Amino acid sequence: MLKLKTGKHSLLTILVFLGLSTNIIGQDPNLKKPNFIIIFTDDLGFGDLSSYGHPTIQTPNLDRMATEGQKWNNFYAGASVCTPSRAALLTGRLPVRSGMASNKHRVLFPNSKSGLPASEITLAEQLKKANYNTACIGKWHLGHKEQYLPTNNGFDYYFGIPYSNDMDKVPGSPYWKYWEQPKDSIKTEHFNVPLLRNTEIVERPANQHTITKRYTEETIKFIKENKDGPFFVYLAHNLPHIPLFVSKEFEGHSKRGLYGDVVEEIDFGVGEILKTLKEEGLDNNTIVVFTSDNGPWLPFKNNGGSAGLLKAGKGTTWEGGMREPGIFWCPGLIKPGLISDLGSTMDLFTTFSAMANVEIPEDRIIDGQNLSRTLLDHEPSPRKHILYYRGTELFAARLGDFKAHFITQGAYGQFGEREEHNPPLLYNISHDPSENYNVAEQYPTIIPQINALVNAHKANLIRGEDQLAERE
Amino acid sequence: MLKLKTGKHSLLTILVFLGLSTNIIGQDPNLKKPNFIIIFTDDLGFGDLSSYGHPTIQTPNLDRMATEGQKWNNFYAGASVCTPSRAALLTGRLPVRSGMASNKHRVLFPNSKSGLPASEITLAEQLKKANYNTACIGKWHLGHKEQYLPTNNGFDYYFGIPYSNDMDKVPGSPYWKYWEQPKDSIKTEHFNVPLLRNTEIVERPANQHTITKRYTEETIKFIKENKDGPFFVYLAHNLPHIPLFVSKEFEGHSKRGLYGDVVEEIDFGVGEILKTLKEEGLDNNTIVVFTSDNGPWLPFKNNGGSAGLLKAGKGTTWEGGMREPGIFWCPGLIKPGLISDLGSTMDLFTTFSAMANVEIPEDRIIDGQNLSRTLLDHEPSPRKHILYYRGTELFAARLGDFKAHFITQGAYGQFGEREEHNPPLLYNISHDPSENYNVAEQYPTIIPQINALVNAHKANLIRGEDQLAERE
Repeated sequence: MLKLKTGKHSLLTILVFLGLSTNIIGQDPNLKKPNFIIIFTDDLGFGDLSSYGHPTIQTPNLDRMATEGQKWNNFYAGASVCTPSRAALLTGRLPVRSGMASNKHRVLFPNSKSGLPASEITLAEQLKKANYNTACIGKWHLGHKEQYLPTNNGFDYYFGIPYSNDMDKVPGSPYWKYWEQPKDSIKTEHFNVPLLRNTEIVERPANQHTITKRYTEETIKFIKENKDGPFFVYLAHNLPHIPLFVSKEFEGHSKRGLYGDVVEEIDFGVGEILKTLKEEGLDNNTIVVFTSDNGPWLPFKNNGGSAGLLKAGKGTTWEGGMREPGIFWCPGLIKPGLISDLGSTMDLFTTFSAMANVEIPEDRIIDGQNLSRTLLDHEPSPRKHILYYRGTELFAARLGDFKAHFITQGAYGQFGEREEHNPPLLYNISHDPSENYNVAEQYPTIIPQINALVNAHKANLIRGEDQLAERE
Repeated sequence: MLKLKTGKHSLLTILVFLGLSTNIIGQDPNLKKPNFIIIFTDDLGFGDLSSYGHPTIQTPNLDRMATEGQKWNNFYAGASVCTPSRAALLTGRLPVRSGMASNKHRVLFPNSKSGLPASEITLAEQLKKANYNTACIGKWHLGHKEQYLPTNNGFDYYFGIPYSNDMDKVPGSPYWKYWEQPKDSIKTEHFNVPLLRNTEIVERPANQHTITKRYTEETIKFIKENKDGPFFVYLAHNLPHIPLFVSKEFEGHSKRGLYGDVVEEIDFGVGEILKTLKEEGLDNNTIVVFTSDNGPWLPFKNNGGSAGLLKAGKGTTWEGGMREPGIFWCPGLIKPGLISDLGSTMDLFTTFSAMANVEIPEDRIIDGQNLSRTLLDHEPSPRKHILYYRGTELFAARLGDFKAHFITQGAYGQFGEREEHNPPLLYNISHDPSENYNVAEQYPTIIPQINALVNAHKANLIRGEDQLAERE
């Protein structure tokens, strides 16, 4: 069904539609491709923005972005911890396929030997095929050795830290008691994390007080330098992952305390970026997405975030571990509204490839789905399921309203030990988003449907070689 | 400090300011008084609107109201159950003062002997002094005998049910197992609740399928009939209190199930009311408030609501029992924004009295504070504390960011037995809204401050005679 639309974006809409259906349309040199900006935070929970229900964190810029654009309420990260989640977003594939998920180490460390395999195709590499200028600004965490860095993965430019901001701990630092300490006992010098420009270390330890502000400034500079487009910026803030730092201007900014200060500084940066887009006349042709890599790191108490009404947090396959705010913005292009359908960070790969008219690779399974019709026209999302992996094991699967847990396990000493469930636990998470009431007996036909989905998935699964296991 | 303001509302702003400071300004016949509409729901939780973080309940009209107006994130009901909460809102006084709180029965029942004492002054009675036309539409629950009904408490018109929609149970009905039953086993005929117009029963049992729609229609009719103003409508929906019913048009409307259908029908009604105000040219002179009487009734599982990230629900003095959505709307008058300061339903009495230029009674303690400057100008809220009563006992007190629990107790078999705390539990609920981390030891100066507040309160407290204790 091809609906002809009126208005300035009709050509793009039609092209996207055709591009998706056939993948054979050539690039039209007269057509202006949309720019893309993905703003990706670290350990921010589903409940940490005011528009997602937080009572004392004020995020007016993100809230306005949600009102002017689409606010997704069932939007998922690809994993519940950093490295696999980032691999999922950039490759459009479950990290178990790329080898970026492991049962030995959950993420990469400063002494890890490996990183994202060269055979993987990143969203940046996809967009380079359509002549996008590409930048990665912020935390990478897909391999710190030169061959794994962003500039070897499709990004023209990189500015950021190669792994988490709590790594490279200086011996004797008070870090491990962080959640019990007054904030001023933690200094940025306690973490000897390097800051890179392209492949060179330009600062070590990175000054984390100013890092959020500098990421925003670098993004704005890149936008202005590439305003003739098309461009793609992957802005991956390394906060509000602990340790928490803010610039002087944001100290005491939030009623929520230091964690809120950090989130409000990120929100301020989002506002500056949107303002730049408007000033440069790019707002109607730049799609901005805001989401996060995984749920809140709850054992850090008030220095960790909140999953709102969802259960548990980072590291788990309960909803609090993987469901995140998902905001899409582009006035005149993204049709404003509230979306309760399913989406995943993996879908950005497929959606933006389609919008840029780049063919989806056919030599491998891509898990991302094309959300264009939902974004542009409020058509139902094509995504009907979510697979919840912990490491290389499938712990749970969601099909429509229902989620089956085959295995449950808490994380970081909270939410219980590993438990296998046969028959699986079954929740209707549209009715019961907090996963309180097992309804397996009331809905006997659902688990067989979910089992069929899982069996079909496993039958086609080629597991990538574990890239996280080996450390020096 | 009197700031002269420009714009069409400057006169009102100044008048409100002066009125508050001196209480001596006479009514200016040239000044158009604002109309007031309070939309008050029953058992809706802090987390049950999409703008307050619910993922599958969609409330676009309330969300837009929050964006165009003020969204309060620290707004409290006067009690955690129906009768005392309604008494608090309408009198601007803690229910322990009016005798509308009791340790014997928590609310009024169809065989209760009493109701709101005639000596109490309701907001409707206040506004009658300024020639407002007044209507109560919906659930009353402040006494079902004629002398206690709305028409004897300052309301010109009444249409609604006199107590909760789950009362007058028909013997043998399957009600008590409601949460375990499919929804179609519960019928509106199982509850022999009367529907009144003024003081006459016009329908019994009330058809609860159409009741939400009819409340909205009655409100719209009253607005149109009184468009020359000023008017006050207290629209107290008796849903989403269980048993849950919706009209045909809203069956299956929500992904959240029946509870979501009910909330979405209320939201639709809000949209119709705001549309009417616009069509009648009343939108810039009518202040609409949306809030609820107490937290979600959690033992009813998916037929109860959600307090979002707040702890516990209805019946308790944890935050989930008494903190509610609080939305204020009046384009051009209410200054849009996100408010993290404190507010209470009791403040509506004082604020609207001031805006209507009616003096606050001086022969009694009024707990309500005047929020006008916050609503009009984003000045800090004058409210600095919240007192959390359960029945006639003070269980907890909030002063600024901190809340001390002297007694904790769950409700309806959840969240534990009664426990007295000496020293009290202390939470920083701005930093820790879920009340997880007792910080009494870290902040040794706070509990003495809260004790001083409580002692001053108790020293002046005159307890009203218990109106809830006696039943026939």
